[in-house]
Amino acid sequence: MSNTIFSHRSIRKYKSIPIPTEVLENILLAATRASNTGNMQVYSIIVTQNADMKAKLAPLHFNQPMVMQAPVLLTFCADINRFSKWCEARNAEPGYDNLLWLYTATIDATLASQNAALEAEANGLGICYLGTTNYTADKIIQVLNLPKGVVPVTTLVVGYPDEQPNLTPRLPIEAVVHYESYTDFDTLTINKLYDETENSDFSKNIIAENGTENLAQVFTRKRYTTAVNKQFSEVLLRVFREQGFNS
Amino acid sequence: MSNTIFSHRSIRKYKSIPIPTEVLENILLAATRASNTGNMQVYSIIVTQNADMKAKLAPLHFNQPMVMQAPVLLTFCADINRFSKWCEARNAEPGYDNLLWLYTATIDATLASQNAALEAEANGLGICYLGTTNYTADKIIQVLNLPKGVVPVTTLVVGYPDEQPNLTPRLPIEAVVHYESYTDFDTLTINKLYDETENSDFSKNIIAENGTENLAQVFTRKRYTTAVNKQFSEVLLRVFREQGFNS
Repeated sequence: MSNTIFSHRSIRKYKSIPIPTEVLENILLAATRASNTGNMQVYSIIVTQNADMKAKLAPLHFNQPMVMQAPVLLTFCADINRFSKWCEARNAEPGYDNLLWLYTATIDATLASQNAALEAEANGLGICYLGTTNYTADKIIQVLNLPKGVVPVTTLVVGYPDEQPNLTPRLPIEAVVHYESYTDFDTLTINKLYDETENSDFSKNIIAENGTENLAQVFTRKRYTTAVNKQFSEVLLRVFREQGFNS
Repeated sequence: MSNTIFSHRSIRKYKSIPIPTEVLENILLAATRASNTGNMQVYSIIVTQNADMKAKLAPLHFNQPMVMQAPVLLTFCADINRFSKWCEARNAEPGYDNLLWLYTATIDATLASQNAALEAEANGLGICYLGTTNYTADKIIQVLNLPKGVVPVTTLVVGYPDEQPNLTPRLPIEAVVHYESYTDFDTLTINKLYDETENSDFSKNIIAENGTENLAQVFTRKRYTTAVNKQFSEVLLRVFREQGFNS
């Protein structure tokens, strides 16, 4: 376990080798072994292997080449549809079309996705999470034919790696972990926590490529600007409402 | 990996044995190795070990005895505060106080939590996720002193197991997995998918205990009623707004 967790790298180049059916099925089973609220399993996994379907999804993932390269995409969805249909068939009135269950189902779908990711990696496969799923959720819903009650949360690209990237550095653990209660950050502490990140050759190259003064500006002015964040937030809010999470 | 994933059980009774510091630190490091958006690490982990702090959190987790029993609680939080503070210290205007980043940070916090859960289990520890974190998020924010930009997502109870529960059955994999596109469920399919669950001795006992006609009504009338779901949805919406995710 440790070994799989600690050697994780996101893989963005894949060989065009298919995943054996039994390996894929094992990954999907591993996903369902994750903890989930009330054992209600309010999530779904959509498996994309068909080239036509991948071609429809590719632009929604900003045409990242790995989407067409890798043999399998797994789209993890928050899903109260199946559970509600079961309730309706049992003279039991479902009341899950609300924020609490959208949030709960999102968490459960995400736990399942990480089990799938680790099981894939333990089988020699590589994975990459696609954040684009949230940006184009409205269109992914159309392509994957998701009914009301179902919202795509995240997508895993899965396949055999065709690259061996280095481990990505993380912030010092003190940046992330607080003991007993949250200690907010003053500028001196921020400077210390981000020192190594900001002064790495990797960051210096990114700053030079982007022509910004510093690394933070790469994020705020190039990668994730306020305008784009607001635009995608509106997409997401519309998706939540259109998929029936109204109360 | 497989073995840890496939032998997961939620543990609700714990021995009063502390977790060695190096094991706990390893679990926390494992959490940070999970994939995360843009390597921004927009999450935090609050470690609760102090008995007074546990006593304050216990009622917010509905006084489940394991909260006091187990040596460690880990509260995983969506956190744009640290990243935004860094941006502000670098003449970079952060624009993450919106739905997209609340959702993104929630996913990233959850991925981290599942790595922590599996690393704990790989070290012979037991875990249990607490959904109550979402129901009482407003009060957890006060106890853990979470600033604006930080929202508790889920809590892991971690400790040495004092029970050996059976593996929890899941729905047939076809209930959860769709190939290429989502196939919605008719009543016949629902009946088939839920047949084993509904007719298990375990379910029959639960139905008898709750005095309902069937298992679905245990969920809709006893465990997760519409009224309670709506009440907790309002708490959550208020928390998201009060923590600054306004746009």
